[in-house]
Amino acid sequence: MNIGLDMMGGDYAPLEAVKGLSLFLSQGGAGKNITLYLFGDASQLEPMLREHDVPAGKYVVVHASQVIEMHEHPTKAFKEKRSSSIALGFHYLSNGQTDAFISAGNTGAMMVGALFSIKAIEGILRPTISTIIPKENGQTGLLLDVGLNADCKPENLNQFALLGSLYAQHILNIHNPRVGLINIGEEEGKGNILTQAAYKMLKSNSQINFTGNIEGRDVFFDKADVMVCEGFTGNIILKLAESIFDITQSKHIEHPYFERFNFENYGGTPVLGISSPVIIGHGISHAKAFMNMIGLAVKMQESDLMEKMQSSLTLL
Amino acid sequence: MNIGLDMMGGDYAPLEAVKGLSLFLSQGGAGKNITLYLFGDASQLEPMLREHDVPAGKYVVVHASQVIEMHEHPTKAFKEKRSSSIALGFHYLSNGQTDAFISAGNTGAMMVGALFSIKAIEGILRPTISTIIPKENGQTGLLLDVGLNADCKPENLNQFALLGSLYAQHILNIHNPRVGLINIGEEEGKGNILTQAAYKMLKSNSQINFTGNIEGRDVFFDKADVMVCEGFTGNIILKLAESIFDITQSKHIEHPYFERFNFENYGGTPVLGISSPVIIGHGISHAKAFMNMIGLAVKMQESDLMEKMQSSLTLL
Repeated sequence: MNIGLDMMGGDYAPLEAVKGLSLFLSQGGAGKNITLYLFGDASQLEPMLREHDVPAGKYVVVHASQVIEMHEHPTKAFKEKRSSSIALGFHYLSNGQTDAFISAGNTGAMMVGALFSIKAIEGILRPTISTIIPKENGQTGLLLDVGLNADCKPENLNQFALLGSLYAQHILNIHNPRVGLINIGEEEGKGNILTQAAYKMLKSNSQINFTGNIEGRDVFFDKADVMVCEGFTGNIILKLAESIFDITQSKHIEHPYFERFNFENYGGTPVLGISSPVIIGHGISHAKAFMNMIGLAVKMQESDLMEKMQSSLTLL
Repeated sequence: MNIGLDMMGGDYAPLEAVKGLSLFLSQGGAGKNITLYLFGDASQLEPMLREHDVPAGKYVVVHASQVIEMHEHPTKAFKEKRSSSIALGFHYLSNGQTDAFISAGNTGAMMVGALFSIKAIEGILRPTISTIIPKENGQTGLLLDVGLNADCKPENLNQFALLGSLYAQHILNIHNPRVGLINIGEEEGKGNILTQAAYKMLKSNSQINFTGNIEGRDVFFDKADVMVCEGFTGNIILKLAESIFDITQSKHIEHPYFERFNFENYGGTPVLGISSPVIIGHGISHAKAFMNMIGLAVKMQESDLMEKMQSSLTLL
């Protein structure tokens, strides 16, 4: 398996990316038949990789003479900086030279690459991105979409439910995941035009375990494993949850529950609905986040997640 | 001024309503020329009012032989229980026998009454309900709509902005309140179809101090005084905020900031956009909440808020 990793993306690149790679290999990754394709400035990377004792046989450095900076316009930068680590990473992925691509760099450019250079799974109307939601009882939920699709149709939500359900099952190891619809009001028939129509589609989708509406008050409680909404609401919830962590930090409110709102812990989020694993990391990713992202890409490949999504979609 | 109060609404009625009335009068209310119209079971109320030394000259008991219970279907109950405290309260208000009406009872029935028996302010497309948002720096913001209007047009949001702005100015005493649009992304042009169009209307509305988009991460920060959205997103934010309070309570996480998430402190929420003050309390309202709601109704009348809203609307 060949995993592509952008070494120049994120606030602490390339050092934390190198450390994360080293961690991944030393914690079991070296025993697997995996080659890492490292996209970045070779003159910076090579001494750093040696310094951190990354075994030479486990990686290939692909020199990238450019970097897409965090503030750059995604579409413009992706188009113009063809020698950037992100553009090259997608080039290798779309050619089949790698099986997955990971970056903590410019999120918009990652989206552009994922949506325009990688094929969508056949039948997918809109790819989606998700986030992990820490439940107050210690469990973990998945919320999607969290911002890629600001306006949705009911059939988009139905596909997100299926993609999220398969992800929860095969990656988060949740058996028969409960799928909930983010809504206002508990009963069927409540909500806005979109959720009223989506409720009916989810209810008749035999490939998911739909358990009904999830109100704002239920998001942090263990009422559903997969929570579905359009990207506007999902993005508001995600950023609100992130701000709760920031507030508890700045006010020195310490509690293990709020510590789980530190989204840095979770590595990155995969773009779901495309044919290869593309994982987008937080700009502030440290070594642990890079390690987790590499592990996630490997797990997505090993579990044949994309093929499973493809087969389910043909039944939808 | 004649203020109507449903004595049978809420989990702790009528006792907490009587106590709240008593508090209101003893803390300055008795000095004002106000008569309270108390709707409820006279045989229960009269001894209770005497017991709590409520001065006989300050109130009129209007006997209501029925109560709309919390679980009842709002429209049906409002229509059929004509002798209920809520139906009678609205009857007096629409007749002009009272100037305001307050209840902590069945929220849906209160909405039905407010929307169908009280005139909307001329030009208002959709009345709205709001909530107070505690800001992490100690300030207080207003969020609207929080659930009355699940689907909105840009012109609804523009009216909510104006109503919220006048409320913030005259009731919350915020000078030149900053109005923000709840959105995903910071810059103009970001968001979904609704917020993209609403942004333009808000920007060209000369009667408000529009300061741009408010992301999920900004809701609890002091970036805007009035935050505008459709009722779907607003309701999700409101209930999520309520659940944060519940979680901190159940986990014994004590901090003055989270204490401000106890929505019981705030009394109730007024229906904005109708021609008389109608205030809807939380089911769990205690004496302090009832006192605050009476005070709010009085302030809304004394400040001529509804007339100010009417004049502003003619300029919109």
